[in-house]
Amino acid sequence: MNTVADISALPTPTLVVDLPTVRRNIANMAGYVKSHGLKLRPHAKTHKSHRIGRLQIDAGAIGLTVSKPGEAVVMADACDDLLIAYPAFDAFRAPVLASMAATKTVRVAVDSRHAVDRLAEVATIGGVTIGVLVDLDVGFHRTGVQSPAEALELAKYISLAHSLRLDGLMLFPGHVFTRSESQAGPLAKIASLLQETIDLWKRHGLAATIVSGGSTPTAMQSHLVPQLTEIRPGTYVYNDLNCVAGGWCRLEDCAARVTCTVVSTAVPGKCVIDAGSKTLTSDRRFDAPDQAGFGHVVELPLAKISRLSEEHGEIELNGESPPLLGSRLSVIPNHICPCVNLHDQFWIREDDGRLSASIVDARGRVR
Amino acid sequence: MNTVADISALPTPTLVVDLPTVRRNIANMAGYVKSHGLKLRPHAKTHKSHRIGRLQIDAGAIGLTVSKPGEAVVMADACDDLLIAYPAFDAFRAPVLASMAATKTVRVAVDSRHAVDRLAEVATIGGVTIGVLVDLDVGFHRTGVQSPAEALELAKYISLAHSLRLDGLMLFPGHVFTRSESQAGPLAKIASLLQETIDLWKRHGLAATIVSGGSTPTAMQSHLVPQLTEIRPGTYVYNDLNCVAGGWCRLEDCAARVTCTVVSTAVPGKCVIDAGSKTLTSDRRFDAPDQAGFGHVVELPLAKISRLSEEHGEIELNGESPPLLGSRLSVIPNHICPCVNLHDQFWIREDDGRLSASIVDARGRVR
Repeated sequence: MNTVADISALPTPTLVVDLPTVRRNIANMAGYVKSHGLKLRPHAKTHKSHRIGRLQIDAGAIGLTVSKPGEAVVMADACDDLLIAYPAFDAFRAPVLASMAATKTVRVAVDSRHAVDRLAEVATIGGVTIGVLVDLDVGFHRTGVQSPAEALELAKYISLAHSLRLDGLMLFPGHVFTRSESQAGPLAKIASLLQETIDLWKRHGLAATIVSGGSTPTAMQSHLVPQLTEIRPGTYVYNDLNCVAGGWCRLEDCAARVTCTVVSTAVPGKCVIDAGSKTLTSDRRFDAPDQAGFGHVVELPLAKISRLSEEHGEIELNGESPPLLGSRLSVIPNHICPCVNLHDQFWIREDDGRLSASIVDARGRVR
Repeated sequence: MNTVADISALPTPTLVVDLPTVRRNIANMAGYVKSHGLKLRPHAKTHKSHRIGRLQIDAGAIGLTVSKPGEAVVMADACDDLLIAYPAFDAFRAPVLASMAATKTVRVAVDSRHAVDRLAEVATIGGVTIGVLVDLDVGFHRTGVQSPAEALELAKYISLAHSLRLDGLMLFPGHVFTRSESQAGPLAKIASLLQETIDLWKRHGLAATIVSGGSTPTAMQSHLVPQLTEIRPGTYVYNDLNCVAGGWCRLEDCAARVTCTVVSTAVPGKCVIDAGSKTLTSDRRFDAPDQAGFGHVVELPLAKISRLSEEHGEIELNGESPPLLGSRLSVIPNHICPCVNLHDQFWIREDDGRLSASIVDARGRVR
């Protein structure tokens, strides 16, 4: 294993993940779901790392969630139960899932008869069973059937396909994206919609064994939606500045930081780091998209990353002393998921403080 | 070579580059610089591709520009003359440049004595000469010395280093980012600043043999800054929606498109494609950051990509007929450079219409 003693031995910009913080974040979420009788199926999109996924499984997660069959293939080495929370029905995606279903539990969330037909087809050819969740739109209006009646209609259709198994419902409450104290109203509305759907299914002899909810912003409020059997948060494993801004974690819970080098201090009142949009992404902070800048500089808490070029991050010092040219700074990004996706490898700060090289195993999958 | 006859044979989302359009864009810029007695040193950050870089050299470019030594190493296979338009002085970057300078012409742009010292050190150890350009801030206020007097002071310092060769000036007019008709004023101001600097250097016996300017937005107005000897546009090779919005190209000059699949049509008035922020980037359009959406859907010209998740692009149809589930759409991104950087490989539509797989050779370089 490629291991170094100190961050100064690493070329920049690079991503460093603090293992003790990751362990604490994982334990925290595991504790929450346990205390509320929920199951946890973390979304691997955040880390795309076999090793981190394995940590989640070891801490009690029942399986992993992914967006792409190519990611499922990687994560299948870490667990036996995979949910593709994506309408992965096309001719390049569906056969991968059928093939995986020969040895693993594979589930897919869908919102169309077309997707059901395609999945049934490949499952039949492969002689396997694929589990299906009906994606129900609970207010984010991205994907998902539009009403309990539509959910029933699609559930009936799924239940007729011999190679598919109707497992339940999936929802993504992406619109409930505010500080936790104000989530109760929107979550009660979701609970009511779910209950209506479940009751309707029941009256037609169909059961929603799984009701899969939640991402990081609402994860710790999932008990307010008693219909949920499991949740799928992803970001919580590393956290980021959006999580801090939303009140879902503290700054010290942010496990992933971009280590960078100060490359210019020529412009008064500023310094420039070697982390731009190709390192941090240009994702803005949800609560203050035009004001908040592009990340938190740990060593310069008053400073603001005011503008990104592709390979430059411009930091307005706001009274902080200009750092030395060539010195190192570390940045907590606004949104860690697409940031991780920009890096081929990252470094894990192990429990003993040493840094070991790790691969972002599941990045760069086309399908 | 991995070649397919048709776009339908490719898993999505994927990047497809039209070679005839690339050739036309390259010829167009080559024609412009030739007619104005300028030299062209295209920035390879846009394509990060050895093959495309080679096309630029074959069309008369005198060398290539890069941001990172790791990119220079890749592009060194395509040409013998490399400009690192970045203060690449740290202990991980500078030695790579010294090593390359043994067989290639290597130049670096700097804005500090610290950078000069570090580069002189590695060049001395390596027994090589590195060319240096003084980065002069002409109004973008990112990097660069702040005045002709500072430029003189740094030029003198460089000229004292035996292993370095003072080659001239570099500027980045990133603030001149408007439609071409209104560029004349800001460009005249830049010309005046350059002339003042060049005259000051001359009075102290120093020559700016190279005056390197311009990126795509101002490229075709470079003759308004008569001090320039060369320009470094990058985006022009592919173009993007920002170039169209800025009036620097036409829609049909956009050579790179993301081919994607319609994965959901469940929400009325919308369809969802499998290209989100991890495929297109969340870069906004410079002229209408909050209104313009995240790219142009070629097949649905009235539609708008109104919201991106990581793997979903939500398209408001705006009266366009909903496309069929599973059908293909192609998207011209707002900003092609970070978009290319998200893809490990891309497909080139050759002159005969066939698609051949190509690698984004220089992506993922840490330093």
